[in-house]
Amino acid sequence: MRYEEYTIEGRNAVTEAYRAGKTIDKLFVLDGCHDGPVNTIVREAKKNDTVINYVSKQRLDEMSKTGMHQGVIAYAAAYDYAEVSDILNAAKEKGEDPFIFILDNIEDPHNLGAIIRTANLAGAHGVIIPKRRAVGLTATVVRTSAGAINFTPVAKVTNISNTIDELKKEGLWFVCADMGGETMYNLNLKGPIGLVIGNEGEGVSRLVKEKCDFVASIPMKGNIDSLNASVAAGVLAYEIVRQRLN
Amino acid sequence: MRYEEYTIEGRNAVTEAYRAGKTIDKLFVLDGCHDGPVNTIVREAKKNDTVINYVSKQRLDEMSKTGMHQGVIAYAAAYDYAEVSDILNAAKEKGEDPFIFILDNIEDPHNLGAIIRTANLAGAHGVIIPKRRAVGLTATVVRTSAGAINFTPVAKVTNISNTIDELKKEGLWFVCADMGGETMYNLNLKGPIGLVIGNEGEGVSRLVKEKCDFVASIPMKGNIDSLNASVAAGVLAYEIVRQRLN
Repeated sequence: MRYEEYTIEGRNAVTEAYRAGKTIDKLFVLDGCHDGPVNTIVREAKKNDTVINYVSKQRLDEMSKTGMHQGVIAYAAAYDYAEVSDILNAAKEKGEDPFIFILDNIEDPHNLGAIIRTANLAGAHGVIIPKRRAVGLTATVVRTSAGAINFTPVAKVTNISNTIDELKKEGLWFVCADMGGETMYNLNLKGPIGLVIGNEGEGVSRLVKEKCDFVASIPMKGNIDSLNASVAAGVLAYEIVRQRLN
Repeated sequence: MRYEEYTIEGRNAVTEAYRAGKTIDKLFVLDGCHDGPVNTIVREAKKNDTVINYVSKQRLDEMSKTGMHQGVIAYAAAYDYAEVSDILNAAKEKGEDPFIFILDNIEDPHNLGAIIRTANLAGAHGVIIPKRRAVGLTATVVRTSAGAINFTPVAKVTNISNTIDELKKEGLWFVCADMGGETMYNLNLKGPIGLVIGNEGEGVSRLVKEKCDFVASIPMKGNIDSLNASVAAGVLAYEIVRQRLN
């Protein structure tokens, strides 16, 4: 584990985190506060593409663990992110067709951790998550990944649809999990592939779904709507593994 | 959801819970306390096969939410348990070969909930869990099951090995998930089947493993040891679903 801090509070601490090159997932700034040090932090945040939330003093007080936030609280990644190119290179180095998990807004850290674990064991070369509205590499995710995070790169992108377009140029096909698709056993899931898993409640977003080449569905015999997101990811990933073995 | 209470504290409350026929998963009694009301509760607990733990006053004080435990705290199931016969009957009513999940000491309530959800969607007829050293149907499990608990019966048994023996007489075969087994794709998993999933850390216990007809392994391409227990259950359950479709 490279580092495990999560919440960074106070102007100096946040400024130093940026200087040290730490990945800040989210920045919370006191709304209306525009003095020098805060402006410097906001500039740094924009340069690093951090999501900035302007919030009330009350909100910051509630979030603060030290009571010394000075108008600035940052959520730092508990782990370093990779680049999408690192994932493609990992496939190339192994001489394998790329196999990438694309997570369209997984919110539960236990699910993200379990999915990274599955990606590792299914032989995927990496996991791509979006910058906004999704959980990042928090300490819980790192723990739940059971060590997989040390081996399987996780990249964070601004726009999942654009990333899919770029990866299509690299020859990848995309399959997303959704109801009403073709039963997964009937699809050809060999070759360079991106497996798209949707949000726990809402599934895959419309824009992302439209980018996918296939919609795969897991046969459902029961009375309820859907599998847990990490279980669905596992079942689909292993259908890909099975087809690749043949 | 039939009822959702979890912790019941105090002599009268616990006595009444037993009188009402509520399932008490675990009973904590002040060690060395043998007065009339406590003896009555312990007798009731033994009659109902509740696991009894004799603990110190300090432990009870720590567990207590009301501060009024009077030497007795009970953990009630958030949901009613079924009998193993109910599960077999469910299969019979549908005219299907029985397909049962046997959980050998799942400890994490999120895993148990996700597995019940998977059992429902994979078309299993029920889930069997052990009385001791495993999580019961707590409120978290009920919530994580996403409604599946309303449709998929969960039975609680004293001894998993004995239950396997009894189910073998009903014609079931048993497959457990473990490393070093035959790759699941190469096994014949059709017919009346019990799928055995082991504990999160330790896997399937030796005694239970010896009772199984097959040991199935999920192909592992990665660097770490094992999948999350609920993901492993999902991957194996869907290999059974796939084989049953053919």
